[in-house]
Amino acid sequence: MTSDESPSATAFVPGHITGFFSAHPAADSRHAGSRGAGVALTDGVRVTVSRGDGLRLNGDSVEIAAVDRVFDALGIDGGVDAETPLPLGTGFGVSGALALGTALAANAVFDCGRTENELITLAHCADVDAGTGLGDVVAQARGGLPIRLEPGAPGIGELDAIVDAPRIEYLTFGEMSTEAVLGGNTDRLSAAGERALNRLLAEPTVDRFMTVSSEFADEAGLLTPAVADAIAAVEASGGRAAMAMLGRTVFATGRSLSAAGFEPHVCGVDFAGGRLNRVVDADGTCSLAAAEPTESVRREPAGRK
Amino acid sequence: MTSDESPSATAFVPGHITGFFSAHPAADSRHAGSRGAGVALTDGVRVTVSRGDGLRLNGDSVEIAAVDRVFDALGIDGGVDAETPLPLGTGFGVSGALALGTALAANAVFDCGRTENELITLAHCADVDAGTGLGDVVAQARGGLPIRLEPGAPGIGELDAIVDAPRIEYLTFGEMSTEAVLGGNTDRLSAAGERALNRLLAEPTVDRFMTVSSEFADEAGLLTPAVADAIAAVEASGGRAAMAMLGRTVFATGRSLSAAGFEPHVCGVDFAGGRLNRVVDADGTCSLAAAEPTESVRREPAGRK
Repeated sequence: MTSDESPSATAFVPGHITGFFSAHPAADSRHAGSRGAGVALTDGVRVTVSRGDGLRLNGDSVEIAAVDRVFDALGIDGGVDAETPLPLGTGFGVSGALALGTALAANAVFDCGRTENELITLAHCADVDAGTGLGDVVAQARGGLPIRLEPGAPGIGELDAIVDAPRIEYLTFGEMSTEAVLGGNTDRLSAAGERALNRLLAEPTVDRFMTVSSEFADEAGLLTPAVADAIAAVEASGGRAAMAMLGRTVFATGRSLSAAGFEPHVCGVDFAGGRLNRVVDADGTCSLAAAEPTESVRREPAGRK
Repeated sequence: MTSDESPSATAFVPGHITGFFSAHPAADSRHAGSRGAGVALTDGVRVTVSRGDGLRLNGDSVEIAAVDRVFDALGIDGGVDAETPLPLGTGFGVSGALALGTALAANAVFDCGRTENELITLAHCADVDAGTGLGDVVAQARGGLPIRLEPGAPGIGELDAIVDAPRIEYLTFGEMSTEAVLGGNTDRLSAAGERALNRLLAEPTVDRFMTVSSEFADEAGLLTPAVADAIAAVEASGGRAAMAMLGRTVFATGRSLSAAGFEPHVCGVDFAGGRLNRVVDADGTCSLAAAEPTESVRREPAGRK
């Protein structure tokens, strides 16, 4: 654990749900990524880096290849203590959040002297090279409702966004391997993703985002039975839901999941994106303390009523 | 005023202090702008757009050319009620904040169907064409501690950022005409701005930002006596302060102004940048309500002790 006498820094990075995407691998991972759209969540990952070692997620020792790769790229080795209400492997970009949060906080602790774009690039490449993400990091860095127009790191890829701030509901049924899906044939998926992006850009609203995301999940052939059932139940009650790419997770805007009888997790849109929010110097003084992320809505327990 | 039965939308846009810059005018205002660096503030402008008319700032009717230009560009006409603790014409980018906030909120009220980049571009061009700003809008849209690497609207200009979250103190002595400064010979100012940017990029930290901003204010020949005296007083007490471009305003990080015996306004860094945070539909229901900006530190009265 981080002691008060040891220098440390804490970053917050929002979770990110992708509604639809097309995969764009590339030999140079700065150019690799995805086109698509998603939502950055007030539920995210709080990452504290210190001069210790190891990675603990909610108190448990874990191995996350993207975090190791960030330290390697910075040429340093530090300890990471991360906390999140989000489960791993279920489509919330937790690996990307850990990579970006580690980069932002390590830069402060070890005086790496990097700019924000350089740290985002490091984290993007780490997540891509580890096979755990293909566009979460750049979206998590921007916040809001990012549209990935062109794949790649800052200065290479291109982002836009939907201007809105919906309430978000979500429900998780279990993991799905990002590596397995992205390592297979992604032609069908990517064709569906390109269609969805064109339809969203013709009408860049949250309603259209949910419609094309729901269609994408179906067309991409990634639906699992529990996810398909939940989406169908929401649509039968007049709401709209879609699948978080890539996880066995259903998400919806407004009250679509609760109106259909589910008891979802509830959060809001995080507009700030990944940011450093606390640095403790070697003498134990806290040299800065930015606003912690504020949830726009009360969290509620998950499960079916 | 906005009635509960009339559709309306509210956006928040942070104030923005530029520490140094070089001016880059262009015939096409999407390509015009500035290179430089600054800080987005938790003190900002709350802009509510409704189907009424007129522009009220803190309850007083005012004319802001940039706001008129935003409505013209969207082909609509609406009413604007804005609130801010920041004074106009003193280097906080209030005109840019009004333009961007109006664009974000009007898009929701009038279903304009624009993306975030399109609305930022509209507001950037409006502020540039009105002669009231030359880079505030893109920085206010990003939030944090933006570095303007290349001038221009999204997709044309290029931004990076310093990764940090300092406490900000500021003190205002009065107005300065942005139009008059930018309309004159800016060669000396721009040469100093380019030097400052190169020095910041060599070491992208808040300390270096304050150092090069202080040097820039001196080299650009824009210091007024009260501003120069305050900066000298801060430096004499071991702190660091600089001038907000363009206004008779001194800003500092940490407690540099208070340590020198001033009673500054205090705020934090706004990481989210301009965002929509409330839409009231025609039937009076509030369809969304994102987190309001959270100040990281308590506001204090301004003035000399």
